[in-house]
Amino acid sequence: MKWAILGAGNIAKDFARYFKTERAELYAVASRSLDKATAFAEKHRIPVAYGSYEEMLADESIDAVYIATPHSHHYEHIKLCLGAGKHVFSEKVMVTSRKQLDEVTQLATEKNLYLAEAMTIFHVPLYPQLKQWITNQDLGKLKYIHVPYASVRHADSPMYFYKPELAGGALFDIGTYALTFALTFLTSPPTNILTFGDIHEAGVDETSVILLKNKEKELATVTLSFATELPQIAVVAYEKGYFEIAGYTRAKQAVFTDPNGNKTTIDADDSEHAFTHEINNFTNMVLDKADNPTLEKTRQVITIMDTLREEWGLVYPFD
Amino acid sequence: MKWAILGAGNIAKDFARYFKTERAELYAVASRSLDKATAFAEKHRIPVAYGSYEEMLADESIDAVYIATPHSHHYEHIKLCLGAGKHVFSEKVMVTSRKQLDEVTQLATEKNLYLAEAMTIFHVPLYPQLKQWITNQDLGKLKYIHVPYASVRHADSPMYFYKPELAGGALFDIGTYALTFALTFLTSPPTNILTFGDIHEAGVDETSVILLKNKEKELATVTLSFATELPQIAVVAYEKGYFEIAGYTRAKQAVFTDPNGNKTTIDADDSEHAFTHEINNFTNMVLDKADNPTLEKTRQVITIMDTLREEWGLVYPFD
Repeated sequence: MKWAILGAGNIAKDFARYFKTERAELYAVASRSLDKATAFAEKHRIPVAYGSYEEMLADESIDAVYIATPHSHHYEHIKLCLGAGKHVFSEKVMVTSRKQLDEVTQLATEKNLYLAEAMTIFHVPLYPQLKQWITNQDLGKLKYIHVPYASVRHADSPMYFYKPELAGGALFDIGTYALTFALTFLTSPPTNILTFGDIHEAGVDETSVILLKNKEKELATVTLSFATELPQIAVVAYEKGYFEIAGYTRAKQAVFTDPNGNKTTIDADDSEHAFTHEINNFTNMVLDKADNPTLEKTRQVITIMDTLREEWGLVYPFD
Repeated sequence: MKWAILGAGNIAKDFARYFKTERAELYAVASRSLDKATAFAEKHRIPVAYGSYEEMLADESIDAVYIATPHSHHYEHIKLCLGAGKHVFSEKVMVTSRKQLDEVTQLATEKNLYLAEAMTIFHVPLYPQLKQWITNQDLGKLKYIHVPYASVRHADSPMYFYKPELAGGALFDIGTYALTFALTFLTSPPTNILTFGDIHEAGVDETSVILLKNKEKELATVTLSFATELPQIAVVAYEKGYFEIAGYTRAKQAVFTDPNGNKTTIDADDSEHAFTHEINNFTNMVLDKADNPTLEKTRQVITIMDTLREEWGLVYPFD
């Protein structure tokens, strides 16, 4: 199986660096600039470089494409890749609305191609291990999840953070992790959402709090901010104890506290980088023609995002 | 100045144990049972014991009364004490509605008496020290506060926790601390409140999440539960760093993290128990005829509680 990278920016470098799988080969990279693609290919020992996405997608030996362009461009690039008959592994956020997701999902189904989001939380080994542990221990009902994600980003940054035309804002940048985390543990997707969102004058969401509730009456608070820092520790609380997961976006361990205050550390085997797990999992799914369960989680996250944006009055130029 | 205790239950023991002030004397205790009052007085070396509240309140040598009865009885007992011309220091929650608070506040004003709530957060030295530190450091705008308070209480407990007739429920029991904490840092009281509250079949609130927002766009999440445990760490996040305050209901220190991740511990002088500070502060306020700033915070908290209870549909038998 042959992989290609579409886009040669920062996140593409990580993909190339952590690409280690016995069942696939990192074969090509494409950028709008041939010089950039060539330099990237040389640095990361990738056999082929293309100066145009369309040219690369015409290469019939490529099976799967990793999309590493800005959020605002994923939708068009996913369509381009699926149209060319390639499986697609897209950086998060995969698309910027439920409508877009339904469209690309349908296209993938029609073409019998795999489409999935490169979301670390779907792929690091901790979460399946933790869910098994929870089942084994019988912790009672899930009562509450708290997921903060804050990171000071400056409005004058040259990056996409405060640029609406590049789908900036805390929700798409960091909120996608926090919401995915919440949905990893909630028994069913939220049926009620309450939120306050503070929109920066640049036209993107800067600070927000989100309250989720599902039919099981499980509650979750998600806090996002570009204007402050917060300890990046998620809490998942059951009737019979709670977990604290530091650095939950790619965590290797969780600390469980029982009702008597006794602590247990749950360690996941994580000898590889999160990206290596992602690439392996997508490769195996394609080669084994396995189920594609993460797409449903992506759908749940984007559905919540639609609701939040409507509540906040957050409209992007490309909407 | 002479103090008396009205009620001889668990919290009254703590009051007596930590009563250490040079400007006042713990002079009397009253219980509905004379035997109980006498035993309490002997154990805590209190000169006088009364078998009736009315009898004690007729003792003209008593200046101030500490009310240590269940939440559901504070309102009547406050009126009784003020009516007898005594200053009143009431256990939290002081009353169970804004209407009750307005009534007893007006009575205290008419009688020229002091009335205040025994809320640790008003009195431990950490908070004024922290607010001074924040001003000195210029931390920018307050962006977000997170205040969890959860503690597993069983529905079959003989205590008041799940008894609506005794004003049980998480909001009145532990929520009062969490809301007071939030209001200690918010620049102005919340103008918008969003909440989900889960009412137990016993008729009290068991788990809830509360979102607060004020006109400065400062956001807060408050989480309360009798059905799970949570780490009791409050977070207060400014543009230029955040505080973590463990055991915030009577904390002695806060840990500040700056935007580079550097940590500073702010230690408060706390050689005394929280109760000793409370008793000293109330005594000094009365003897020095000082301002009574905490009553306004109590009013803000009870106003929020009214809103929450209405939103949750939580009605008590005594409403």
